Amino acid sequence: MENVQNLIASVNQNFMDAFKRADAAGLAEFYTDDAKLLPPGFPMMSGREAVQSFWQGAMDMGIKEAKLETVEVESQGNLASEIGRFTLTVQPEGGESAEMTGKYVVIWKKQDETWKLHVDIWNTDAS
Amino acid sequence: MENVQNLIASVNQNFMDAFKRADAAGLAEFYTDDAKLLPPGFPMMSGREAVQSFWQGAMDMGIKEAKLETVEVESQGNLASEIGRFTLTVQPEGGESAEMTGKYVVIWKKQDETWKLHVDIWNTDAS
Repeated sequence: MENVQNLIASVNQNFMDAFKRADAAGLAEFYTDDAKLLPPGFPMMSGREAVQSFWQGAMDMGIKEAKLETVEVESQGNLASEIGRFTLTVQPEGGESAEMTGKYVVIWKKQDETWKLHVDIWNTDAS
Repeated sequence: MENVQNLIASVNQNFMDAFKRADAAGLAEFYTDDAKLLPPGFPMMSGREAVQSFWQGAMDMGIKEAKLETVEVESQGNLASEIGRFTLTVQPEGGESAEMTGKYVVIWKKQDETWKLHVDIWNTDAS
């Protein structure tokens, strides 16, 4: 039986690597075609193009790195839920580098033998 | 076959009713024993007792009503994910009433023939 948690961990590693390269198009590839992104401070967004342009905007605003740490994964069939914690490294142009911590939930879907982010929501620990 | 979306809608209606009655203990009953709550501005919380005390605190701070509107439900077996939008009505003591809108993801688990909130995360549309 496949180990869903390991497969998700491996996509998360690729996600972090793409983020470090500031590769928003690469990031968007980890999402389903009709993925929904629910970022704090923005309305809900749908579709891979919206995902790419959101992450491009985040990078342009100075988010340099996203560290993801899985807390719990549950799966049934082609559906899995992941709870995790994140640390974002933010360095606006000419500004100091700062870290922001928070938590997230991702609904994963298996499509064509690949686990993809289908729903992605997060918030920060501090208000 | 059971209609998971209808069953979830019915729990959500009970959730909204309990909220209006400011019944935090009743709200907590809709969650699994080991539910995780991921509120913006707070660290992750675990367990029904933590859930009850969080909602009690939110009510004490003046949150009078929570309107929930399901956008999408997907389920497999005993696991379901729901995306939704919420509107909170906030009226701090002696203050004006205001509305806050946002979005949420709930991971539902079926336990003893009842669908319960197992993971609950949300954030607001405006920062």
